[in-house]
Amino acid sequence: MDACIIAVGTEMLTPFRVDTNSLFVTEHLNAIGFDVRMKAVVGDDVGELASVVQAALEWADVIVLTGGLGPTEDDITRDGVARVLQRSLSENEEIVDRIRRRFARRGLTMPDINRRQGMVPDGATILENANGTAPGLWLEHGRSAIVLLPGPPREMKPMFEAVVRDRLAPRSNGAGLFRRVLKITGRTESDVDATVQPIYGPWVTQDVPISTTILAVLGQIELHLTAKAPDHATAARTLDAAVGALCAVLGDSVYSVDGSPLEAVVGRELKERKLTVAAAESCTGGLLSSRLTDVPGSSEYVEAGVVCYSNRSKVQWVGVPEELIAEHGAVSEPVARAMAAGIRERAGVSVGIGITGIAGPGGGTPEKPVGTVAIAVICGAAAQVRTFQFFGDRPLVKFQSSQAALNMLRLMLLSS
Amino acid sequence: MDACIIAVGTEMLTPFRVDTNSLFVTEHLNAIGFDVRMKAVVGDDVGELASVVQAALEWADVIVLTGGLGPTEDDITRDGVARVLQRSLSENEEIVDRIRRRFARRGLTMPDINRRQGMVPDGATILENANGTAPGLWLEHGRSAIVLLPGPPREMKPMFEAVVRDRLAPRSNGAGLFRRVLKITGRTESDVDATVQPIYGPWVTQDVPISTTILAVLGQIELHLTAKAPDHATAARTLDAAVGALCAVLGDSVYSVDGSPLEAVVGRELKERKLTVAAAESCTGGLLSSRLTDVPGSSEYVEAGVVCYSNRSKVQWVGVPEELIAEHGAVSEPVARAMAAGIRERAGVSVGIGITGIAGPGGGTPEKPVGTVAIAVICGAAAQVRTFQFFGDRPLVKFQSSQAALNMLRLMLLSS
Repeated sequence: MDACIIAVGTEMLTPFRVDTNSLFVTEHLNAIGFDVRMKAVVGDDVGELASVVQAALEWADVIVLTGGLGPTEDDITRDGVARVLQRSLSENEEIVDRIRRRFARRGLTMPDINRRQGMVPDGATILENANGTAPGLWLEHGRSAIVLLPGPPREMKPMFEAVVRDRLAPRSNGAGLFRRVLKITGRTESDVDATVQPIYGPWVTQDVPISTTILAVLGQIELHLTAKAPDHATAARTLDAAVGALCAVLGDSVYSVDGSPLEAVVGRELKERKLTVAAAESCTGGLLSSRLTDVPGSSEYVEAGVVCYSNRSKVQWVGVPEELIAEHGAVSEPVARAMAAGIRERAGVSVGIGITGIAGPGGGTPEKPVGTVAIAVICGAAAQVRTFQFFGDRPLVKFQSSQAALNMLRLMLLSS
Repeated sequence: MDACIIAVGTEMLTPFRVDTNSLFVTEHLNAIGFDVRMKAVVGDDVGELASVVQAALEWADVIVLTGGLGPTEDDITRDGVARVLQRSLSENEEIVDRIRRRFARRGLTMPDINRRQGMVPDGATILENANGTAPGLWLEHGRSAIVLLPGPPREMKPMFEAVVRDRLAPRSNGAGLFRRVLKITGRTESDVDATVQPIYGPWVTQDVPISTTILAVLGQIELHLTAKAPDHATAARTLDAAVGALCAVLGDSVYSVDGSPLEAVVGRELKERKLTVAAAESCTGGLLSSRLTDVPGSSEYVEAGVVCYSNRSKVQWVGVPEELIAEHGAVSEPVARAMAAGIRERAGVSVGIGITGIAGPGGGTPEKPVGTVAIAVICGAAAQVRTFQFFGDRPLVKFQSSQAALNMLRLMLLSS
């Protein structure tokens, strides 16, 4: 079955923004047996949207549109689709009431403009929006289903999962694509590829074929496995075996096979061991603590944290001896270690982390160029200190530093 | 003049990869007076590519295709375009020679498969590739120019700048697109729209027309202005006036007109006034400090920060009286205020910020549901405390809290 995804919004035709909703929609369409043959981005223009939808109707079994369902004049998806299908639009009182109540719950009066979101083409099914004002819409035309979803990901994704998937799945006839992602950190892309290529090479020709893509992203490597299988159980069996074979050669550099981010994996390990953690951060400026606390329930193991950005604050808040900074410089392994030890003792936690480095663009020297970061982790009787040389701009150095610290802690926990 | 951009490649129809070449191409087309009306991504299928090109020929003055010019069977852009234009393909000996020499320079023999890259549709102009084997191609059809560029950005970008831009520019009728972005926080999308619509409405029909797009993104509203003007000076004059008119009605809810993020704007204000800042964060877990330190040079005004996640840590690190927590609860204005006062005094800074709230998904009560966040900012003799009710999941509540704290500080600095 063939699918077309259309993102609506002039802002995505500027040099500043790409459509990323289609990645999520593709993944979920693939899983229920729909092949995405084409994607398009169209501006806020009724005529242009109509002509793209018209062209897709000639071949697509499903057309998913995202965006353009807001309350303003720019929001033209309802009108564009109604024009192609030659349906008239009328106001749905139930939708308007629901929006009005949503505003009322926040103590606000619904602006009149929001009535636009209650306009519905004849014959459309309304898809409830649990997370925003714009409802989704579902229309049928010949053999095609046309699905209109809101643009904000936090509205679009839950709506797709709660309503759209189950309505679409029975219309598909064929094998679905099922995926797994292995997340790996602390190794290079070519190193990972050289290790796993002999393993995954033969998989493309087996009964339930698996294709493998290797992807280097921010501070980690991802291995994407895609199996084409008649059903979920067959796919799961095949992919489990594949994941097992890859983990056997990659060892503990694989930190997640279920999509979990590194901070969630580390959080799980801390919780299991009933350990608590606190970080003293210089160049990461609080990013590590923020990532640790992105995980629901992290208050069970995150006690506190300190951002000691200035030299003075390293002395004051976590007791780094002034002489140590004078002798080795603020970016050094002894200072990282003193930061980890200081925060651990003062916060009364099991694990102390210290990070100090040069995030750039200024502050580099020939001996310690931008991207030099010293990280210390102290966990029970074990302590580790390492110096990294990261590449990239300021946000990239910050992220890689937090990633390296989390991975050091993960490996120490695994071997403890 | 209207442009269409088509990215060719099945890998960009997976859930893992987006087309980013089009951002570069859009920026450069806009600057020489071409408006990008539509973008598409098509897989490695001659028929499908042909039908998308066919549709674009009906309206586009220029069609830019990227990708699919490699040597393998998957590389179908040449064939797809030749089919639509009904041109035959023949091998160009000069291109093949050039590729052969390129291989020879690296001590390699050209694989026979690379002859495919020498196949050229009748009447095409060849665009030399300084950084790879695949040459670009330029075709004319009726009023349209069709430009085929290689997919790898390091080949595509130099080719566009060296050859394509100067060939395209004279075909444009002059007017280029010039942009401004206003960033607004602390107001809703409909409220902003209702306020500015009467102002920007008439702009689309004026001599130098400006189109306006309103966009609600994470914790803020963006107003995108695009002026169509014959030259840079005219555009700047028109956009300056437009920005001025919008700022006059929106007041200080506009925090940036030059693309700067809120943390950079606040940083600039702090630096100008030679003030320093430190935050005591509970529910944001360090995100505010991390954002403040995302700005290069922030070490001039960020002194320190504390993540006091547990009640105990609020008492220990920033001296919140235990009785205050017992009486009002950890998420309360008095506690937020004590956190701000405590960090300000202990860190010896001019500005202290305290944030305490319920990021969710757990921890909510009927009186203090998930998303309740108390924020205090103390700046010199001025102090403000507010309680917010944010919507959305944990990361969204965290971000909105940091955004609200930065905005409170910004407004206090402006009125000081």
